[in-house]
Parts: sequence; structure tokens; C-alpha cells
Amino acid sequence: MAVTQPTLRAELAETAHALADAAGQAILPYFRTAALAIEDKGAALFDPVTAADRAAERAMREVLARRRPQDAILGEEFGLTDGDSGLTWVLDPIDGTRGFMSGTPTWGVLIAVGGAEGPEFGIIDQPYTQERFWGGFGAAGWSGPHGGGALATRPTPALADAVLFTTFPEIGSADERAAFVRVADSVKLVRYGMDCYAYALLAAGQIDVVIEAGLQAYDIQAPLAVIKAAGGIVTDWRGSPVAQGGRVIAAANAGLHAQALALLNAT
Amino acid sequence: MAVTQPTLRAELAETAHALADAAGQAILPYFRTAALAIEDKGAALFDPVTAADRAAERAMREVLARRRPQDAILGEEFGLTDGDSGLTWVLDPIDGTRGFMSGTPTWGVLIAVGGAEGPEFGIIDQPYTQERFWGGFGAAGWSGPHGGGALATRPTPALADAVLFTTFPEIGSADERAAFVRVADSVKLVRYGMDCYAYALLAAGQIDVVIEAGLQAYDIQAPLAVIKAAGGIVTDWRGSPVAQGGRVIAAANAGLHAQALALLNAT
Repeated sequence: MAVTQPTLRAELAETAHALADAAGQAILPYFRTAALAIEDKGAALFDPVTAADRAAERAMREVLARRRPQDAILGEEFGLTDGDSGLTWVLDPIDGTRGFMSGTPTWGVLIAVGGAEGPEFGIIDQPYTQERFWGGFGAAGWSGPHGGGALATRPTPALADAVLFTTFPEIGSADERAAFVRVADSVKLVRYGMDCYAYALLAAGQIDVVIEAGLQAYDIQAPLAVIKAAGGIVTDWRGSPVAQGGRVIAAANAGLHAQALALLNAT
Repeated sequence: MAVTQPTLRAELAETAHALADAAGQAILPYFRTAALAIEDKGAALFDPVTAADRAAERAMREVLARRRPQDAILGEEFGLTDGDSGLTWVLDPIDGTRGFMSGTPTWGVLIAVGGAEGPEFGIIDQPYTQERFWGGFGAAGWSGPHGGGALATRPTPALADAVLFTTFPEIGSADERAAFVRVADSVKLVRYGMDCYAYALLAAGQIDVVIEAGLQAYDIQAPLAVIKAAGGIVTDWRGSPVAQGGRVIAAANAGLHAQALALLNAT
């Protein structure tokens, strides 16, 4: 279903902001504390889950149980909960747990809601800097200690003038790495380590391209909604829909997207 | 000269905080604006200087002209100004100009003051997140929107448990890169892209090691003073004083410093 009713749109947006508020309150007591409970979810991959991660998803699920019990939920920590409204909330309580563990304010709470076609409204929230970026249902905005306003991606025409972000220089497989390097070698500036904050910067017109691999649906649905609403484009490396995760390219505009896509696939 | 008089220490610390206030006020109007005036200082190296950089150093020099006209100044933008007190202020108005250009809140204002022996008091200030980290004259502290308190590095005993930061994965020369990789391969987690914010996180007990190459005196003197006052160690890759810049290793404690130094020099 596509959400078109203004009342439902407003209710969903209000609920999304309430989720972000609840998650931030749950997380902040754990941020930059000395003793952080960290577990390894996988044996091979370093993928810590913090007490904060679980507390925040629980807090968001409590809000949804009160406000939108009819909707499904897909959360990073506690998986899928069925619903019968046709809408699903996709939640990543802390995207960028490694950044969180290191004390950097680059992690974020990711919240998206939509139907089978993918996310229609999303929020990227950074509770420590108190910055929030949201988009969908025809609008995109931000707020923070220094003010707020509309979000819009920027019109950088050429890849040679673009600023590119990725979280890890050791992105993906060897082939994925080679594809990334072809783009990285063609831009003005490459930066690393920003987690989901990079997508917020792209939506805010501060950077031009983000390329990542190995993402989950909950990693990308909120950024996808925010960036699309701000005028940007988010697809997989073939140009196809990427709401279910995988290899992601986000670009500020169609021209940059086409140029980067050509390099990703230039083999 | 080593500054030992309590009155002079208080005056210098107060002046340093006034400099950080003035720099932040000068910079913030330029941060995340659409049209940023960028020049290339060098032909080969991508090293932008923004209008904000110059405005902030001018603002700091005006404060010093009023409060401490007898002191020398070494600033990234406007070079060396002589003094006759034996004290020098070492200023980097925006450390991390590439981060600044990209909208990331990882750049900072770096302020240090000291005599011929090196910095005795330093400040790392992040005006956008409103976080300040300072140290010297026997104390180290931080303040920000979420509170404040004392700074202390953490006691992580083994490199295998350490979190390592560097700004760029393509650090320095091939030999420097190889030395960095020996350490990187021995730690729990490597993160990138934090500019001077990484030194603040180390002083705050959030991370364990920072390794960089090619630094200038104004890049390292403030972090050096803050980290030393917080209980950490900052030297060059041979373990020698590094106040004049070059290859830098900062570590949370003596054990980690020794372990990392051994790997940097294991050829």
C-alpha cells in the first residue's frame, strides 16, 4: 500500500518522531560510559550489540504497541513481528555500533515505515548531537541545536567535483573493493567512518555520494526515505531498488548517480 | 620556561578558553553553508583553506593582542609572530578542513600555549557539537551539552583489546603505511576519519591509540597537552618528543604505547 491519506501520514510521521525520542532517551545513558556490555553476535564478524541497542528497540516497540499495534515491525535486535495493516516499521536502534563503542557521534537511530513497495517515511536521528533528519510524504527536514529547515541534496554536476563517503576502506569483497576504488579514484575527496551520518550529510546537501556493501534492510530503509525526499537517489550497484539491503549507492542527483554507476560496473 | 605561578596559569587557561570562544563564533556561520570559499594552498596536496579558517585565526589573534601581547604566536594560517615572554601560542583554527568541507562535526579548533619545552596547556574545541576538551597545569576536563567533568585515559592493558584511530587509511609513505598496518592488524578495532576529534576521544577514555604521520606543530600541540594531562602519552614513532610534529602516536597508557611502538619499529 502507498500511504496517501493526510491524516494517516501525519499519524505515522508523529509516531516516527516519538520512536526517535524514545530511542534517544534509552540510548544516551549508555553512551560514553566506561563499562559497556558488548556481545558478539557472530563468530567471524566483529558485530557488537550493546545493552543500549536492545533497550532502544524495546522502547520503540513499546511506543508502537501503544500507538500502532496493527503494524508489522522489523527490528535489528528482535526480528520480525507480524501486523495486519500492510505497513511495516523497520528499526535499527543503533546503526554504527562500532562508532558508538568508540564514542564518535556518527551512529544513529534509523526508523522507517512503509508498505510492500518500500519505505515511505524515514528518520535518521543522532541523539548525542541532538540532530534529526527526516523525509517522506512529500517533505524532508532537519532540526538541531543550531536550528532547522528543509533538506535538499546538492546539484554537483561532475564526479570529479564530488565528495564520496563510505564507512570502511576495506569495503566488501575484492571485486566490491575494486569497484569502489574505481569511483574513489574519480572523485575530489573520499572520507571514511561516518556510519549512517554520511547519509544525513548527503540529504543535507553537504556531500555527494555514499557507497557501501553488505547492508541490511534496517540499515538502508530510513536513509533511503530521507534521501529520496531530499531529492537524491538510492539504489543498488546495478541501479535497482535496494530497500532490502545489499550493495548501496546513494547520490545527490541523477547525473552523479549515472556516472558512479557506470564506474561501479566498468569491468 | 615552565609556567608554575598559579596566577599566570589561571590567566593563560582563561585566555585559551576565550580564544576557543572567539574562534567558534567566527567559524560557525561558515559551517554547512552552500558556498564555501576554498583555496588550494599546495598544488599537489589537497589542502583547502576556508574563509572560516582565516576568520577564526584573525579572531584569536585579536584576543591575544588585547590579553597577551607579550607572547609569540604560531598560527596555521598567518605564521609566526614574535613575542618576548618566552611563551608561544600555537593555533590551528580549523584542524580537519576536509571534514569541515564535508559537514562532519569531527574538525576542531586547536589551541596550545607553552615555552621552549612544548605545550603546557591545550584545548580541543568542537564548536558545532559545543564540546570542549582541555588539559594542562595539572588538570584535564571537558564540557558540553550533556555535562562535563574530568578527562582520564583508560587502562586497556593489551593492544588486542584496543581501539585504534587514524584520519586516513592511506596514511603517509609506503613504509609508514606498512608500520601502521602492523599495529592495525594487532588491535580489536580500527576506525577512520575523525580528525582531531580522535585525540579528544582518547583523552576522554573512549579509545586507546591514535597514529598519524605528516603532522605539523599546530596539529599536535593541543592534543599533546590535553592527552598528557589526562594520563596518556604522545610521542613520535621512535618514542621521542613530538611537539614539532611529524609521525605521531598517542596512547592511553604506557603499556599500550610500548606495545604499539614495538610494532611500528618491527622491521
